[in-house]
Amino acid sequence: MAKLRIALISTGGTIEKTYDELRGVLHNEIHVLDVMLASLQLEGVEIVRERLMNKDSLEMSDGDHTLIAETAGSLAGIHEGVLIVHGTDTLEVTGERLVTLLATPRVPIVLTGAMRPYVMRNTDALQNLTEALLAVQILDPGIYVAMHNKVLRFPGATKQRTKGTFVRSGDKPT
Amino acid sequence: MAKLRIALISTGGTIEKTYDELRGVLHNEIHVLDVMLASLQLEGVEIVRERLMNKDSLEMSDGDHTLIAETAGSLAGIHEGVLIVHGTDTLEVTGERLVTLLATPRVPIVLTGAMRPYVMRNTDALQNLTEALLAVQILDPGIYVAMHNKVLRFPGATKQRTKGTFVRSGDKPT
Amino acid sequence: MAKLRIALISTGGTIEKTYDELRGVLHNEIHVLDVMLASLQLEGVEIVRERLMNKDSLEMSDGDHTLIAETAGSLAGIHEGVLIVHGTDTLEVTGERLVTLLATPRVPIVLTGAMRPYVMRNTDALQNLTEALLAVQILDPGIYVAMHNKVLRFPGATKQRTKGTFVRSGDKPT
Amino acid sequence: MAKLRIALISTGGTIEKTYDELRGVLHNEIHVLDVMLASLQLEGVEIVRERLMNKDSLEMSDGDHTLIAETAGSLAGIHEGVLIVHGTDTLEVTGERLVTLLATPRVPIVLTGAMRPYVMRNTDALQNLTEALLAVQILDPGIYVAMHNKVLRFPGATKQRTKGTFVRSGDKPT
Repeated sequence: MAKLRIALISTGGTIEKTYDELRGVLHNEIHVLDVMLASLQLEGVEIVRERLMNKDSLEMSDGDHTLIAETAGSLAGIHEGVLIVHGTDTLEVTGERLVTLLATPRVPIVLTGAMRPYVMRNTDALQNLTEALLAVQILDPGIYVAMHNKVLRFPGATKQRTKGTFVRSGDKPT
Repeated sequence: MAKLRIALISTGGTIEKTYDELRGVLHNEIHVLDVMLASLQLEGVEIVRERLMNKDSLEMSDGDHTLIAETAGSLAGIHEGVLIVHGTDTLEVTGERLVTLLATPRVPIVLTGAMRPYVMRNTDALQNLTEALLAVQILDPGIYVAMHNKVLRFPGATKQRTKGTFVRSGDKPT
Repeated sequence: MAKLRIALISTGGTIEKTYDELRGVLHNEIHVLDVMLASLQLEGVEIVRERLMNKDSLEMSDGDHTLIAETAGSLAGIHEGVLIVHGTDTLEVTGERLVTLLATPRVPIVLTGAMRPYVMRNTDALQNLTEALLAVQILDPGIYVAMHNKVLRFPGATKQRTKGTFVRSGDKPT
Repeated sequence: MAKLRIALISTGGTIEKTYDELRGVLHNEIHVLDVMLASLQLEGVEIVRERLMNKDSLEMSDGDHTLIAETAGSLAGIHEGVLIVHGTDTLEVTGERLVTLLATPRVPIVLTGAMRPYVMRNTDALQNLTEALLAVQILDPGIYVAMHNKVLRFPGATKQRTKGTFVRSGDKPT
């Protein structure tokens, strides 16, 4: 059984942040995602990496969101699924932009991110990446966020900030 | 949005093995699965634990496989999904038994396990449990194994022993 | 053979920093040191904890350094060794203050810290704490920093900032 | 300040055991020690590796113990310290053999090992190796075991089997 060819667009965000010990701060470094991928046993997908940008999502411009959505749309035409690793703060802006630009794509497009960087012991990055890499294989075509053991469809998914996870718009925090 | 109520049947297997430092061997201990569950952020499912047995799957009798399948069948009637944590060596025996007894269940029944115990640094246990906990929410009703970034349906999934992962029966190792 | 009674003064610093996922920053939280101690097998010492302050050492006042030194001096009178967990940026100020106030103490006083917080996967915190907890048992009375597989005596130890470790004053970076 | 040149004799033992996922057992593999060394920040010593054998110490012959002791004696003549990584079950046989053959060596000879392999999450291997790598720099010439936050001198150190750590011969378990 052949593996599915999946495009993986990286854009930065908390998931890829590392620690600068001389300055004592966290910053974004691109190779973290490769370390994460190497730590997983991937029998279902073959990853095609697209390093698009490397930004804290709070610093993304409107043009950045459009660029990510257009790139995902193009890659959806020639792959069996698209994954987007994205900062959670404005992930929903890119999600809604994808809906606007693509309506229903040919294949599943799954966004994911993390609240705690991979370099932390208690990171949620591996869980979320693992989920997105599985969800992209079995979901119907559409635009989704997969994180924290949950898949939500765009339009209508939003970050619940006090809880630090995604919910359906209008849902009360639990 | 309410969480899905999922039954989690534990049966033992490599995934739950721990190390006995005084004897220098690995053995099965039940609470490992609880530690794993606590390390994940579960926003999609509410877990109902069913500690059925705690065996290396090579030591399961024919009656054990039937007992697991019957228990899963019963729990499928009153939950929105069933997960079975199982040793990989005879996981497919339970998978095929489920097909024989239940044909198509009311909800997804997902088996998973691990090649390297959770207590190992390079374990695949968390990856596989994470995948099973997501797959059970989005798959159609049926009987599956979810492991190593892949979901396979029973009948017809089998352990490829030299590679240490599951494939479709008849597939050549890659 | 009885364990040695060792006083452990915590003052904060990078070693104890944790990650605030809602704000995306690192901050100091006191219980990290207890988690670290619980992860070690301590057959040589019995720890008496003294939670003195919880500061980034760049924010310590001159009075803070004196307070730490005086507290260590008092505890040195009634324990078989004293450990001080301290931010590395001004660790040497406290080290030299100890020399000024105590000259040669009755028992070893060992300072340690970390360049990468314990919550990071690649932390040096456990290595340094492990070293300090052993060094305090076998060094002669005196004032030391133990970190990164090295013990240096005060006066004369200083942080080599570009390399992120301690050296003898006047030593060139290697 | 130059680093001390330390000889590190590896002989196998639990500390280096890895997991064979296809057979489900633990076995000895030599490169684990290199992974451990790479994970530590070693500013005090320069390591000269001597891969002497790779055995479970229960399987060492009398000749093996003599070979290890003689090798350590030779290396003690041309290094500033000697470390021996050894299975704990017969570590004391090698320790006493060193005393018989060398009486007081020119430099410190420190034995260490582990109760739980490095590949386990809750290993004591890194703690023990860290301690031995520091102790060898500050101890007087002699023959020692360093493990579990404690340094004991040969002759007279022995493994307390029910507790899984080393004590002075004749000491009661605590």
